[in-house]
Amino acid sequence: MARPTPLSGYPELLPAARAVEREVIASLSRTFELHGFANIETRVAEPLDRLAKGGEIDKEIYVLRRLQADDTADDTGLGLHFDLTVPFARYVLEHAGHLEFPFRRYQIQPCWRGERPQEGRYRQFTQADIDVVGKDELPFHHDVEVMRVMVEALGALPLPRLSFQVNNRKLIQGFYRGLGIPDVTAAIRQIDKLDKLPEDAVVELLAEHAGASAEQAQRCLELATIRVADHSLVDRVQALGVTDDLLSRGLAELASVLDGCRDVVGERVSVEANLRIARGLDYYTGTVVEIYMEGYERLKAVGGGGRYDALAEDGRTTYPGVGVSFGLSRTLVPLISEGVLSGSRAVPSAVLVALADEQSRPASERVADALRARGIAAEVAASPQKYGRQIRYAERRGIPFVWFPASDPGVGDQVKDIRSGDQLDADAATWDPPADDLRPGIVVTHATDETSSTDERQRQ
Amino acid sequence: MARPTPLSGYPELLPAARAVEREVIASLSRTFELHGFANIETRVAEPLDRLAKGGEIDKEIYVLRRLQADDTADDTGLGLHFDLTVPFARYVLEHAGHLEFPFRRYQIQPCWRGERPQEGRYRQFTQADIDVVGKDELPFHHDVEVMRVMVEALGALPLPRLSFQVNNRKLIQGFYRGLGIPDVTAAIRQIDKLDKLPEDAVVELLAEHAGASAEQAQRCLELATIRVADHSLVDRVQALGVTDDLLSRGLAELASVLDGCRDVVGERVSVEANLRIARGLDYYTGTVVEIYMEGYERLKAVGGGGRYDALAEDGRTTYPGVGVSFGLSRTLVPLISEGVLSGSRAVPSAVLVALADEQSRPASERVADALRARGIAAEVAASPQKYGRQIRYAERRGIPFVWFPASDPGVGDQVKDIRSGDQLDADAATWDPPADDLRPGIVVTHATDETSSTDERQRQ
Repeated sequence: MARPTPLSGYPELLPAARAVEREVIASLSRTFELHGFANIETRVAEPLDRLAKGGEIDKEIYVLRRLQADDTADDTGLGLHFDLTVPFARYVLEHAGHLEFPFRRYQIQPCWRGERPQEGRYRQFTQADIDVVGKDELPFHHDVEVMRVMVEALGALPLPRLSFQVNNRKLIQGFYRGLGIPDVTAAIRQIDKLDKLPEDAVVELLAEHAGASAEQAQRCLELATIRVADHSLVDRVQALGVTDDLLSRGLAELASVLDGCRDVVGERVSVEANLRIARGLDYYTGTVVEIYMEGYERLKAVGGGGRYDALAEDGRTTYPGVGVSFGLSRTLVPLISEGVLSGSRAVPSAVLVALADEQSRPASERVADALRARGIAAEVAASPQKYGRQIRYAERRGIPFVWFPASDPGVGDQVKDIRSGDQLDADAATWDPPADDLRPGIVVTHATDETSSTDERQRQ
Repeated sequence: MARPTPLSGYPELLPAARAVEREVIASLSRTFELHGFANIETRVAEPLDRLAKGGEIDKEIYVLRRLQADDTADDTGLGLHFDLTVPFARYVLEHAGHLEFPFRRYQIQPCWRGERPQEGRYRQFTQADIDVVGKDELPFHHDVEVMRVMVEALGALPLPRLSFQVNNRKLIQGFYRGLGIPDVTAAIRQIDKLDKLPEDAVVELLAEHAGASAEQAQRCLELATIRVADHSLVDRVQALGVTDDLLSRGLAELASVLDGCRDVVGERVSVEANLRIARGLDYYTGTVVEIYMEGYERLKAVGGGGRYDALAEDGRTTYPGVGVSFGLSRTLVPLISEGVLSGSRAVPSAVLVALADEQSRPASERVADALRARGIAAEVAASPQKYGRQIRYAERRGIPFVWFPASDPGVGDQVKDIRSGDQLDADAATWDPPADDLRPGIVVTHATDETSSTDERQRQ
């Protein structure tokens, strides 16, 4: 069979790059779990009527058909999920009787969309989602919680600087209502186009679709340009002179989110109010957020989410929720392919145990087992080549240490750090590698500080 | 929207059960990595011409079609993988230039088959595979290695006793050839039916399809009834009086596998030669193995694998391999649904921090953060209910400890073990839960020792 060619839109990682992804997933999982979020996985397939809601996404759904023995195919009525929110909503409804609310869950799984592949957009891609879901009600403090947890989780990763840009749908809606704009929902949809269209065009659309006067449209634009990270937010909005109950509540909520994140933001993650963020999806009803990666604005948002008053409902009960989704493939695949992130080695082994001849394989295996028993990953050389070749074998895999079992009784074992060349006596029952060498780690080639992020931008 | 009904063949785990699966996956991964196996994940979709080889499996393939805006669907030429071997073989070919051989990999991912769902057989199911693949050649000692690693990995899990039943295709082939059976391959295929058909029927099939005489067929059956765990194997086979080079090599290999596993078998896993095991798949060329779970023989094999001289080939290079696959869903889903395995709690949190009133939420959050900073998962009560209700909230989730922050300055915090009722003074900067309470664990309700496994069988 001929050598296969890569399938466009289905990125696949080599072992060392996969080690990076695994470390990232382990780090995210650790933070989510420290905050009490339970992991779930949902099946990959959902009934088409749950996936296809007449939205733009419909055409991107992969439908499952069964290939029959007679070569015809038979529709299953199922499609692959294109995000983790639809399957989670279904999971909550289906298993509600067995769940305790508020239910905190995290989910890290692939999703599929049949869209045209491009950088950061794949046909198979992994997302990491956290959500808190209540039954009938969900207090606002969970909005702050979810945002804090995601800030903390992403702040622990060696990524370029991330910016959480937060807004509140109540604030926008209340502001538009207070302004007297006839069709508030239509206005939100038009303002959402500000990153694609010039301001003039959006003003026209606001007039055409939302019935806004030139004066009203202008005020909408003024609101949308507010971008602050601190309490001056409240003054800035109030200075626009619009009063409305909903606006006040939204403003207070947004200020609380900024406030609540103050002690978790840092060098790697910032949180700011950006009153242009609306997020098109109709189900958001309060907090909304989009996450951007500095120097990688071309990827668009690498995460997002918000509050929905009805994540799910089954006629009798409504389940409000708040959540944030992070695009793992969208960030990692470009960073890995640019060489910004790489794995320190392609194998888990910290030690290669050398092999003097095929007869001493059991002896070398015993050394390896002694190391493994103490949590040190080890492999025995595949064949008894000259030691120089065995060292190069380790080098090609990135294994930092080569172990030489004693050839004669009375002589001790030795271990060589092949990076420094240092070779020392060692006992497999007590020797430990430096903690950093124990597992494959993430190597950051392009520093993520201010300066180099600027370089990054300049290179575009 | 109405409450969704479960989808047959797509088992989905509740959070506590998912914690069991996660612990199992973590334990398997740990063992595989200690032995130098690198993790990879392959994309879920493969070109149909790689998946459909005219075998029986073809009708079980799920084909991906794109749902178009105009409601027609458009074939992608892709199907979901039904095992992890086909995608791994493709991965090796596609990325060969970037891999180091021998290449050890483990892969734990879902697979899909459109078969009729039944206990242990699902339409979406997770497999855990290990393989070692060489370029052009792969020494026999890797057969022993792969078997040992899987024995060790499964022996670390709290499952009912597992039995590795090993055979060797060279042994069978050589024996049949030495006997003078005209069509050796056909004979192997017929002997493989021994667990479905009575011996007489198999004798007839051997005559009809393999041209075996009654005497030859009888000897085939005698070989197939040999089942031993030690070196008497060699004597038993030689006593049948057939001599053949290939037979001798196969017998020596099989004896080496038994020998090599001797120090890793134990109470939870046994390894024995079972000369009836052939495994129908044509690509096996040496060692073959099937894994059975005591008391759960109705599930058939819960794992299997072997040696293939050509896992993959691209016209210029051949990649021989040896591997074993373990059915994670096939074992865990029945054990979980019978209550044999369960999770100790539904949330990662070891501690619920109580909340005196909404105003003290920041204080309670500070306690939780102090615990988290030391690796202790904690959540703050959702609302300031009476303490009795907050304790029941913890109880329903299986959270073992409730923390009461000091209400007044000068008074210390207290922590209550809600199982024993013990309540003690504690400081969030120093207090530690018992190690067993730190993470959700696996609770084995039905012991896995000899006696209770027998009970298990009797209950069927």
